[in-house]
Amino acid sequence: MQLGLVGLGKMGFNMRERVRRAGHEVIGYDRNPEVSDSESLADMVSKLEAPRVVWVMVPAGDITRDTVKELSGLLSPGDLVVDGGNSKFTDDRVHADLLAEKEIGYLDCGVSGGVWGLENGYALMVGGDAAHVEQAMPIFDALRPDGPREEGFAHAGKVGAGHYSKMVHNGIEYGLMQAYAEGFELLDKTDVVDNVPAVISAWQRGTVVRSWLLDLLVRALESDPELDDLRGYVEDSGEGRWTVEEGINNAVPLPVISAALFARFQSRQEDSPAMRAVAALRNQFGGHSVHLAGPSSGAGSTQG
Amino acid sequence: MQLGLVGLGKMGFNMRERVRRAGHEVIGYDRNPEVSDSESLADMVSKLEAPRVVWVMVPAGDITRDTVKELSGLLSPGDLVVDGGNSKFTDDRVHADLLAEKEIGYLDCGVSGGVWGLENGYALMVGGDAAHVEQAMPIFDALRPDGPREEGFAHAGKVGAGHYSKMVHNGIEYGLMQAYAEGFELLDKTDVVDNVPAVISAWQRGTVVRSWLLDLLVRALESDPELDDLRGYVEDSGEGRWTVEEGINNAVPLPVISAALFARFQSRQEDSPAMRAVAALRNQFGGHSVHLAGPSSGAGSTQG
Amino acid sequence: MQLGLVGLGKMGFNMRERVRRAGHEVIGYDRNPEVSDSESLADMVSKLEAPRVVWVMVPAGDITRDTVKELSGLLSPGDLVVDGGNSKFTDDRVHADLLAEKEIGYLDCGVSGGVWGLENGYALMVGGDAAHVEQAMPIFDALRPDGPREEGFAHAGKVGAGHYSKMVHNGIEYGLMQAYAEGFELLDKTDVVDNVPAVISAWQRGTVVRSWLLDLLVRALESDPELDDLRGYVEDSGEGRWTVEEGINNAVPLPVISAALFARFQSRQEDSPAMRAVAALRNQFGGHSVHLAGPSSGAGSTQG
Amino acid sequence: MQLGLVGLGKMGFNMRERVRRAGHEVIGYDRNPEVSDSESLADMVSKLEAPRVVWVMVPAGDITRDTVKELSGLLSPGDLVVDGGNSKFTDDRVHADLLAEKEIGYLDCGVSGGVWGLENGYALMVGGDAAHVEQAMPIFDALRPDGPREEGFAHAGKVGAGHYSKMVHNGIEYGLMQAYAEGFELLDKTDVVDNVPAVISAWQRGTVVRSWLLDLLVRALESDPELDDLRGYVEDSGEGRWTVEEGINNAVPLPVISAALFARFQSRQEDSPAMRAVAALRNQFGGHSVHLAGPSSGAGSTQG
Repeated sequence: MQLGLVGLGKMGFNMRERVRRAGHEVIGYDRNPEVSDSESLADMVSKLEAPRVVWVMVPAGDITRDTVKELSGLLSPGDLVVDGGNSKFTDDRVHADLLAEKEIGYLDCGVSGGVWGLENGYALMVGGDAAHVEQAMPIFDALRPDGPREEGFAHAGKVGAGHYSKMVHNGIEYGLMQAYAEGFELLDKTDVVDNVPAVISAWQRGTVVRSWLLDLLVRALESDPELDDLRGYVEDSGEGRWTVEEGINNAVPLPVISAALFARFQSRQEDSPAMRAVAALRNQFGGHSVHLAGPSSGAGSTQG
Repeated sequence: MQLGLVGLGKMGFNMRERVRRAGHEVIGYDRNPEVSDSESLADMVSKLEAPRVVWVMVPAGDITRDTVKELSGLLSPGDLVVDGGNSKFTDDRVHADLLAEKEIGYLDCGVSGGVWGLENGYALMVGGDAAHVEQAMPIFDALRPDGPREEGFAHAGKVGAGHYSKMVHNGIEYGLMQAYAEGFELLDKTDVVDNVPAVISAWQRGTVVRSWLLDLLVRALESDPELDDLRGYVEDSGEGRWTVEEGINNAVPLPVISAALFARFQSRQEDSPAMRAVAALRNQFGGHSVHLAGPSSGAGSTQG
Repeated sequence: MQLGLVGLGKMGFNMRERVRRAGHEVIGYDRNPEVSDSESLADMVSKLEAPRVVWVMVPAGDITRDTVKELSGLLSPGDLVVDGGNSKFTDDRVHADLLAEKEIGYLDCGVSGGVWGLENGYALMVGGDAAHVEQAMPIFDALRPDGPREEGFAHAGKVGAGHYSKMVHNGIEYGLMQAYAEGFELLDKTDVVDNVPAVISAWQRGTVVRSWLLDLLVRALESDPELDDLRGYVEDSGEGRWTVEEGINNAVPLPVISAALFARFQSRQEDSPAMRAVAALRNQFGGHSVHLAGPSSGAGSTQG
Repeated sequence: MQLGLVGLGKMGFNMRERVRRAGHEVIGYDRNPEVSDSESLADMVSKLEAPRVVWVMVPAGDITRDTVKELSGLLSPGDLVVDGGNSKFTDDRVHADLLAEKEIGYLDCGVSGGVWGLENGYALMVGGDAAHVEQAMPIFDALRPDGPREEGFAHAGKVGAGHYSKMVHNGIEYGLMQAYAEGFELLDKTDVVDNVPAVISAWQRGTVVRSWLLDLLVRALESDPELDDLRGYVEDSGEGRWTVEEGINNAVPLPVISAALFARFQSRQEDSPAMRAVAALRNQFGGHSVHLAGPSSGAGSTQG
């Protein structure tokens, strides 16, 4: 079948390739003419036969919203838009309603796979009507990993359920990564264990903790055995925050996922105002030594 | 080669079978005569030719200590004892020194694999001298999973390093399980996602969170889609506690692993004394409603 | 001066009394005619001379919004509305803009003091223009505790700053209460300390942890030494949630405040879905014993 | 009465003064002859009439142990040793048994008060036999704060209970400080609140969060309104660690106290190995940008 694909960046570029390998025709559109198959959204739409399926793979927020809006003016009743970006699940209802006015369908699709997706396939979590899911199924089958469909694809529920599932997936991911990271740091710090990369490598088969993330950690340690080529500075891309917010909204305790999120916030701080407050308090009540800010701060000086 | 194997419980029984399948001769000893190959430790030792390798697979603590002690009186210089149980790494130095007096070697070996080990093999993390590791290598090769040796076996360092590595492995395991569990609870609680088992199943291929634990969660959900056949009551077996203690001893922050441990403690409390204190405080300062203990406690009653 | 006071519940009733004791005239309005000084909002307004100050002390959210809206139709340019309820700080800009269209001023005021405020005074954190703060200062002085003004009153910043400050105050309060509560539980659990109430009482003077909350804990223990007259079931009223959300929005790590919030969520769960997932996983990989749900669940049964 | 006081450092020096002000005779001993009243422990003992009370106020661990040992050889049956240092509660049984062999009594006494104790008095938590408590009561009364005895003194239980109580006190203290610190950071970070020191000052009277620690925070902000004269680097002195260990030993969840402890560990790390592992993982699966270590690390560079 035909697919219109908007956004040919790190993700979209590879996804176009994977869909084409499965034998489908993809008309891509990107602002960057070097990768684009069409000159404009309108041009892309004109090259597709109705009923069309257009996959949107652009940054979440304003850009996705503007793209959906523009598509609502270009597409015809019976067409279908799939948002595969990292949109917040609360955006999906807005997009769906906007398109429904023109009798255009909408699906939200959480996509996991990163730079490995071209070869391994992309896991897909979809929200929306069953008829729309059916309409796009050949594309889903092209993108998802080989193997049983239900091991890499789910129709999670109504509009929003796809991005919600992906959000939770990423929240879990934060917790998993932090768990491995804490274990790594303890092994790194103790002098009981001599060969940390060998130990972590040995966890790849037969253990309870074996996973794809563990395999990636082994890969990272192969080229950088103490992981000291990079700094412990970690961004976060939104889904972890939304997961904790949703935990709060639903009174679900998320001690591990929130701790992993906060560890990222901390990793980006040169100096912690909170810990300055603790240091100030200790100095007030106990005359404990504090580390003064400024050029000689490394030395530490004892006060009162 | 020959192996003496002490302890033929849930783990040892299957390990004997796996070593035998690899073509080695195993003389097992267990208090339970129905599974034992020998009448006593002494009988087991007498059936092995020197230099002997004896694998101890009994509960950590007193029983392991007593077994090692008894073996120190039965074995000969050049023999080797491997403790494959869940001993605390600080016990290993004691065992090694005790055996060294008799010129008997000692290795500590962390074993991961559980009830799946017979088929999948057991991941092994070993501490001790390289010569001793060499001596027992045929047994390690029999027990470890198929595939490259370094993906299921590591010589982690000196005596204690094997159990230390296993301890950290289990600490990580706590964090991983809690991360999946929190995500499950959020999916379970929200009404945005309709088909939670399908979503979790779809994470098995292509995603960042795919792992053996995830596969097991899918299995569990197959037979009990809301996981309501069992209670949220979770024991802990020691290694998680030791991991957090070691974090504290080494000033390594372990927010995720400790949160996972504390969640288990909480799961076993009928009622939390800490939360009674919080309720009492709120009642004192704000006249907030409290839930009284006693027969009508479910109802909740408002006080002044 | 005159004050219009809307809402004469647990808080407003006592605040009216405290303002009157300071010599001001208060015209209160409440839906409950038994406590109200006027028959309607309009009646209340008609009894006040311009420029009027009207203090709103009703539940946050819809009721506050409706009250502010109604007041915007009743008051005159130059009048001033003070929202002293527990509104979210994001509501304040909306209220201020709505009133500004009619040239009516607006202040948001976080109020702390609970049932003790009548005697001790209420701490006040105010957001809005300096001129409006000046206009209401006699009322603030009547409400705030005795002593230096700056120890119980602050002009925190522009509109919203008062409720923001109160929100953070309550977030801190969650953390403080949980810290005392955890210490209480540890003392309660250990058999090293025999007389827990005596120990906590001894912290009231000279210690680093002395505080008003500690005094309240001592009071609670006097009438219920093991705090077992009530259950460990704790509600939360919103500000703790907003504090954590704001931490997330501002990338500020809040491990303690969030842990205190999550402990409250946990306290209200009969059974934790997350911990059922952990129990299910342990059962899958290790044949660990689980506690089955149902009538015999208390007994615990071993599987696998 | 007479008191022998060993250790005249930051704490002991002021305690001698406070006991003398109460009319007692104190013979102090310190290695530093400038502050010592006697030439040696033996000299100090010789200047006291039996039955003697000797208060030990030296660093916990080896020095306290050695001092107790030496005193056991110098004192007579019926004499009494009080350890007022920050000893771990598990040391107390050892000290008590050692002294009991010579029929010398032993009390452990947790002391809180810091540099403010001379004027405010020291809160005291004591473990040991009631008869010994009675013997030293005049000294306890001299040291404790003015006011009712039970508000600054407790006989907590048998030997060890005093130091246990002080340990928990300090664990709580960690949590309280971190709660205030998190609130401070959020106020500091947001642009909604303009005058952070004024807000915190306003919490001193009438609020739920008023406390001595809050007063100290106000003091610190008076001289350094953004707390940027010092660094967010915070030591820990042991009791927080022991508290979390005891939580683990007793299966008591301590999410807040442990989070406060871990925040201190983090504050002392230049770079976090755990967060390097998270950064490495993100780089592996997503080609996320990482911050490279080295001279240009501040810039941040995007990879793959």
